[in-house]
Amino acid sequence: MTWITIDRSQNTPMIRQIYHQLRIKILSGEISAGYRLPSTRQLAEELGVSRNVVLEAYEQLLAEGFLEGRLGSGTFVAEGTYLKKIETNSFIAKNHQPKKNNNMIDFRSGIPALDLFPRRQWGNLAKRVSIETNHSLFGYDSPEGRIELRTVLAYYLLRTRGVECQPEQLIITTGATQALTLVAKLLLSQNETVIIEDPITHEIQTIFQSYGASLLPIQVDENGMDTSQIPQDIKPAFIFVTPSHQFPMGGTLPIQRRIQLIEYARKTDCYIVEDDYDSEFRYEGPPVSSLQGLDPNRTIYIGTFSKILSPALRLGYLILPPALIERGRSLKYFSDLHTPSLEQLTLALFIKEGFLEKHIFRMKKIYRKRRDFLKEQLYNEFGDTIKIHGDSTGLHFVTEFNEVHFSDHLLSKLHDCGVKVYPVELHTIQKYVYKNHIILGFGNLKEEQMKEGILKLKSCLF
Amino acid sequence: MTWITIDRSQNTPMIRQIYHQLRIKILSGEISAGYRLPSTRQLAEELGVSRNVVLEAYEQLLAEGFLEGRLGSGTFVAEGTYLKKIETNSFIAKNHQPKKNNNMIDFRSGIPALDLFPRRQWGNLAKRVSIETNHSLFGYDSPEGRIELRTVLAYYLLRTRGVECQPEQLIITTGATQALTLVAKLLLSQNETVIIEDPITHEIQTIFQSYGASLLPIQVDENGMDTSQIPQDIKPAFIFVTPSHQFPMGGTLPIQRRIQLIEYARKTDCYIVEDDYDSEFRYEGPPVSSLQGLDPNRTIYIGTFSKILSPALRLGYLILPPALIERGRSLKYFSDLHTPSLEQLTLALFIKEGFLEKHIFRMKKIYRKRRDFLKEQLYNEFGDTIKIHGDSTGLHFVTEFNEVHFSDHLLSKLHDCGVKVYPVELHTIQKYVYKNHIILGFGNLKEEQMKEGILKLKSCLF
Repeated sequence: MTWITIDRSQNTPMIRQIYHQLRIKILSGEISAGYRLPSTRQLAEELGVSRNVVLEAYEQLLAEGFLEGRLGSGTFVAEGTYLKKIETNSFIAKNHQPKKNNNMIDFRSGIPALDLFPRRQWGNLAKRVSIETNHSLFGYDSPEGRIELRTVLAYYLLRTRGVECQPEQLIITTGATQALTLVAKLLLSQNETVIIEDPITHEIQTIFQSYGASLLPIQVDENGMDTSQIPQDIKPAFIFVTPSHQFPMGGTLPIQRRIQLIEYARKTDCYIVEDDYDSEFRYEGPPVSSLQGLDPNRTIYIGTFSKILSPALRLGYLILPPALIERGRSLKYFSDLHTPSLEQLTLALFIKEGFLEKHIFRMKKIYRKRRDFLKEQLYNEFGDTIKIHGDSTGLHFVTEFNEVHFSDHLLSKLHDCGVKVYPVELHTIQKYVYKNHIILGFGNLKEEQMKEGILKLKSCLF
Repeated sequence: MTWITIDRSQNTPMIRQIYHQLRIKILSGEISAGYRLPSTRQLAEELGVSRNVVLEAYEQLLAEGFLEGRLGSGTFVAEGTYLKKIETNSFIAKNHQPKKNNNMIDFRSGIPALDLFPRRQWGNLAKRVSIETNHSLFGYDSPEGRIELRTVLAYYLLRTRGVECQPEQLIITTGATQALTLVAKLLLSQNETVIIEDPITHEIQTIFQSYGASLLPIQVDENGMDTSQIPQDIKPAFIFVTPSHQFPMGGTLPIQRRIQLIEYARKTDCYIVEDDYDSEFRYEGPPVSSLQGLDPNRTIYIGTFSKILSPALRLGYLILPPALIERGRSLKYFSDLHTPSLEQLTLALFIKEGFLEKHIFRMKKIYRKRRDFLKEQLYNEFGDTIKIHGDSTGLHFVTEFNEVHFSDHLLSKLHDCGVKVYPVELHTIQKYVYKNHIILGFGNLKEEQMKEGILKLKSCLF
């Protein structure tokens, strides 16, 4: 029998080679039901391998049902082992990652300075967690996340953001996106209304809509959501706001509007969802207090470590009013059981040992410098034909150009010039209000890159 | 003015103390709109602090809208800054974690030996990843996960499980639970039928039902799903199977039934979802090949590192037929953008450097010994009044007792005796078929614990 070949140069063990070739021949019908295989002794001799090798291959095929042994009469191919081959579709989706143009200056917002991630501190703590922690760490955990992290986080948030919460109200999430998804699952059913700022991150619109929300956009101005425009005669599922730093327009919601929102939520018995994504980087004065602290029973607070540390960690959190905790934990459980434990514990140590606040302090100075530099470049090149909005906080601001329409055509022309900017229109619900506005992120750009980017922008615009 | 007090022993900066007290007084209406604050100079003098301290506190309150300055006439409390206080609900949900009874012997299934996690290797690799990788690692990544991990994983799965896939077909998920959720989102709409083994993990039933599935249970026997019972006149959304190691009954689906499933799926144009959660630990012969390899265009394959490494990592994966890749990635993106990158890269190195296969090899020997020991204890104590099912693979088996009904009452009595066992009935769709069957997990129990547990079980049963 020469139809089985052994290739001794392969990594694959000989047992596996014999098993594999016989299996394919049976599935394809090349040897069919009722066919009697050579004895193990015979095949071993023909292939020049030990009899145990053939024996094990046969046993595996017997165990899987391909073969059956008939007492005293040998080993046969079993019934029902033929499978018609269907040509496999050779199309494979390409990776989404676009080809990198290394000369491209990308003003994408919300990216922290990736080269300044505290690698060594993080790496040392990660190692320490893996080696030193009690071994129960490596088992399943509870959906709300590690108590060590929730405890230091509750204290940190109270101190720095005026957030009023017990560790029990926190659910550690796999990034803020998951927190948004959990909120949608918690609060939405078909055709319910969500009152939302316009413009607002388009991914957030997509998430809420995918859970059945009908979005009621409220225009923003320099001070965030214009609460006077909220209609009084509806009952929304919730109000979604970014009060510390409106995305993308950058306003900070004044106390009067915050109070109006809370009174409205109390009247209509709905929740307020506060998304606080980068307000640690406030360049004028200390961070603004959270809206959550004004009424912890009405407000769901979402936070993230993507901007203050790294988006690659996928670490965010959700603070729930007591009435929502149990269902929130259950929804988290059925999403992914819990967020990875080792990383949670590494972060808990990182906060507890003071590294987080030192890192934020350091980065704030760097980001302020980058912001100032970018503003300077813009004013140098464009003078009073531009206006800058929302630059008091965070890793981006908005630039409004006189009489420039950032159409798809223009954006692709800019792309060809080697500069990528992001139109506010990408995030608007009501269109054509912001067609001359772009978002410029500066968190992950060095001065020379920003300078080059703005020069490219100018040369391509005019 | 004595209503503001400075506590110099506190950690809170004095600026924050003044800000905080004024804010509360304004919100509560204690000082109301139109009230004129003392000048910064005056208040500084009264409190015995520098004028800059008061100035900064006032500025923060001005920025947030609590105060307004009127030129030449001082600083006043602004309108609309009063918020009616609502008594906060002091109820906080308790942590789900039950009180630990340290003497409890818990036969929970699916827990690997937590004390044998390769801590040092993992910790060293985690540190290396954090310190040495290119800094782009710390940015946002693509939803399908790191190419490094998908590449080594595709090769590993081909070699060890006969899984046929390109790295492009893999989506790294935050554990297998997320993979199940993505499958439900991909394939289900309201009132569609899912053909499913009975019994089957109850969490899986809950997930599919929460996405609108109507479950059609098919009984399992010693060889997994009894495919002859599948009705021919329906069109299901998909068929869900655990062919390598049926959960919980432990059968391995023979090739004939696998081929029947694929032919059925081809005829009704539906998918097969293969959940392969612990088949690496096969104690007789090499691991059984995957069902996926028989028809990669019809089969969605779900795998996990929870049993072979640790559930705390929350690392699993989904292999999709080409037609489903794009939508699968998009659903993953809107769930949590992507799974944490540093852990993905640590795992990629762990596999690439051969640690994973060494770890599995080592653990298989340990688990086999634990399995044998537990069987021996059971036979010693219960003799032929028990029957053991599905012990060829994995971290658990099922024990059937003559004439013992594991009712809630009995289970709670056992609990009080200090032994926790899990009834198969917890996972059945059609009830009362398996009332004398329990699942015994042995992955995380030492011999002396198992011995004690079985003695407790016996003394409590009889």
